[in-house]
Amino acid sequence: MPSSRRVTLKEVARQAGVSYQTVSKLLNGQVRLLPETEARIREAVDRLGYRPLYPARSLRSRTSRTLGYSWTPATPDSPNQILDLLLQSMLSAAEASDYHLLCFAHHFDVRRELETYLTLYETRRVDGFILSSVEYDDPRILFLLEREIPFVAFGRSNPELQFPCIDVDGCEGLRMVVNHLLESGHRRIAVLAWPETSRVGNNRLEGYLQAMHSAGLEPDSLWIQRGEGQVAFGEEATRRLLNLPPERRPTAIAALNDLMAFGALRAAQQSGLHVGSDIAIAGFDDTPAARYVHPPLTSVRQPIWQIGQQLIAMLLEVLNHAYTSPPECVLLAPELIVRASTSPEASE
Amino acid sequence: MPSSRRVTLKEVARQAGVSYQTVSKLLNGQVRLLPETEARIREAVDRLGYRPLYPARSLRSRTSRTLGYSWTPATPDSPNQILDLLLQSMLSAAEASDYHLLCFAHHFDVRRELETYLTLYETRRVDGFILSSVEYDDPRILFLLEREIPFVAFGRSNPELQFPCIDVDGCEGLRMVVNHLLESGHRRIAVLAWPETSRVGNNRLEGYLQAMHSAGLEPDSLWIQRGEGQVAFGEEATRRLLNLPPERRPTAIAALNDLMAFGALRAAQQSGLHVGSDIAIAGFDDTPAARYVHPPLTSVRQPIWQIGQQLIAMLLEVLNHAYTSPPECVLLAPELIVRASTSPEASE
Repeated sequence: MPSSRRVTLKEVARQAGVSYQTVSKLLNGQVRLLPETEARIREAVDRLGYRPLYPARSLRSRTSRTLGYSWTPATPDSPNQILDLLLQSMLSAAEASDYHLLCFAHHFDVRRELETYLTLYETRRVDGFILSSVEYDDPRILFLLEREIPFVAFGRSNPELQFPCIDVDGCEGLRMVVNHLLESGHRRIAVLAWPETSRVGNNRLEGYLQAMHSAGLEPDSLWIQRGEGQVAFGEEATRRLLNLPPERRPTAIAALNDLMAFGALRAAQQSGLHVGSDIAIAGFDDTPAARYVHPPLTSVRQPIWQIGQQLIAMLLEVLNHAYTSPPECVLLAPELIVRASTSPEASE
Repeated sequence: MPSSRRVTLKEVARQAGVSYQTVSKLLNGQVRLLPETEARIREAVDRLGYRPLYPARSLRSRTSRTLGYSWTPATPDSPNQILDLLLQSMLSAAEASDYHLLCFAHHFDVRRELETYLTLYETRRVDGFILSSVEYDDPRILFLLEREIPFVAFGRSNPELQFPCIDVDGCEGLRMVVNHLLESGHRRIAVLAWPETSRVGNNRLEGYLQAMHSAGLEPDSLWIQRGEGQVAFGEEATRRLLNLPPERRPTAIAALNDLMAFGALRAAQQSGLHVGSDIAIAGFDDTPAARYVHPPLTSVRQPIWQIGQQLIAMLLEVLNHAYTSPPECVLLAPELIVRASTSPEASE
C-alpha cells in the first residue's frame, strides 16, 4: 500500500497489535521477540510499506551520545541575540538525557561546510545535528536529507522539503505588532523589511499585510521599505518615510528586527519627533538593547528556551526512532512586549 | 635542586643539550632515543627536579581531541555580550588543529558542577577544559589543579594560584577611560563599580584610582559608588551623584560596565542634562547596545577574538606538553572606543 503519505511506526504497531516501542526496538535490533510476534511485525511493515525515516542505528557500532551544532557567526553590526539562551536550553535538555553538544565552526564555503557535517557524522563524533538560520534551498538541509543523516532544524525551508522542524510564527508576531498599532489609533503604518530572498522576512511581512488587510487598509507601496536589516538602513528608510507628504507620511513604523528599529528611532529623533507620542516605532526579536534605548523599544520576543528544549527532544526522538509524526514544522507563538516607543504610558 | 620556582622543560633541555621537543617527546613516550641521550635527559630531569605540569598523557589510552567549555548563563538583565565571538574564535582555533569543542551546561550547585568536569575528563569525553568568568577562590580552579586535570582560564583568580591563563588588563582599560576624561578637561570624575568581592571589578577600579592619583587628584569618597552592575543601579547611583552640591558634583562618570553606563545615561537625561556636553559618561565592554543608545556610548573593547585563539593555543600546548612557561597570566591590552557620550564631536 505505498502512497505519497509517510506510513508511521505507530500504524505498523497498531496493525501488528504491539506497542510502537516494540516495533522500534525490533527494527533497530535492540530486542529479540517470539518468532510469531516478529513475523507479524515484519508482515505489517511489508504490507504498509513502512520505511524508517533514518537508517537503522544498529548499522553503526556505537553512538557518541553527542549532538552537533554550528551557527552563522554574528558581526558587530548584527550580533547574535539568542545564542546564549538557545545553547543553554539545548545543553540542559541534552544533558538530562545524558547527551552533550559538540559545537563546530561555520564555514562560509558551502562545500567545506557540508564536508564538516559529513565527517562529524561518519567518524561518529556526533549522532545528529541541530540546524539554525535555515533559508530557502538550504544546502545543509538538502545534503542531510539525501544522506539520511539525522537532524532537526530551528526554522523552515522550502515548503516541499519535509523534515523535523520548530519555528516561531513570525507572521503572527507581525500581526500582533500591527494590531497593537491599529488599536492605538494608527492607520498609516509602514514596515521596514528584508529583501525578498529572505524566508524569515517574507514570513514576518505576510503578518503585516494580513493585519492591514483585515483592518480594511491597503498599504501605500512606499510604506514597504526593503533593505539589509541593519541600523543604517533603518535610519535611511525612516528618513525617506518622514519626507513623504503629510497625507502619505506614516505615523507608525514596524521593523522586522530591532536593529532597523534602532535606526528608525535615531532618524525620528533627529527630525525632532518625540518617539512614542509623535510617532510609534516597534522592532522584532526583543534584543537586550531594546530595553536600554530611549525610549525603550516595543518588540516581539521569541520563546527561545522552549525552542531549545523542543529541538533536543525532537532530535532524541529521531535518534531513538520514536519520532513517529510526519516531519512537519511545529510553530510556536511569539510574545508582544509593549514599551514606551509605541505606548508612552508603558511601565517598562 | 628542588626550589619553590617551577623548573621548565626548556631548562631540562638546555642542561641535557637537546631541544625541548625531544625532552617532551621522551617524557610522553612518543619517541625512542639513543640510550646515552635518554640517560642524559633523565639525569637532567632528576638533577633539576623537573616535574611535568600535568600527568603524562600516555597514561590515558586515547585522547578525544575534544575540549570542554561551560559558561555561566546570562540573564535578560545581564546578557552575555562576548559569547558568540569567543566561541567562534575558539572553534576556529580548535578545528585548525583537528580538535572540537564540547559544550556543557553550567550548574549553580558547585558539587554538581565539579562532578561534571570530573566525569567528562574521566570518561575521556574531553582532554581538557577552558574556564571563563573566573573569580577569587574559584572552586573549579582549586578542583582541577588538585587533580592535575588540564585547563586554561580566561581570567585570573587569587594571586597565589598559578595556572595557564589569559586576561584583559582591566586596570589599563580604566586608566585609558579616566585619562581620556582628564584630557577632555574633567577633574570631578566618579566611578560606578561592583562590590568589593568582584575580582574583575577591583582590577578595573584600580585603574581609576591610579589615573586619578597620577593626575594629582584625590577622589571624593562619594564618587566611588558600588552596586550590582545593572542598569537600575547605574541609574540610582547617578541620581545620587547629580544631587551632590555643585562643588562636589562630578562632571564625568566612568562605569565599570556598559549596563551601569546605560542607567547613568537615563538618569542624566531625566535630569535634563545633555550627555556628551553637560556630562560625560563612559562604559566598559563595548556591548552591541553601546552603539545604539543615544548618544552612542564611549566604551572599552576587549580583544575577544585574540583571547579565544590564544586560549586554545595555550590549552593545546598544555595537552601536548609543549607548555613550558611557568603558568603565568598573559595580559592583553583593551582598546578605548570614543563615542559621543564623552566626546560630542566623535564620528561614531
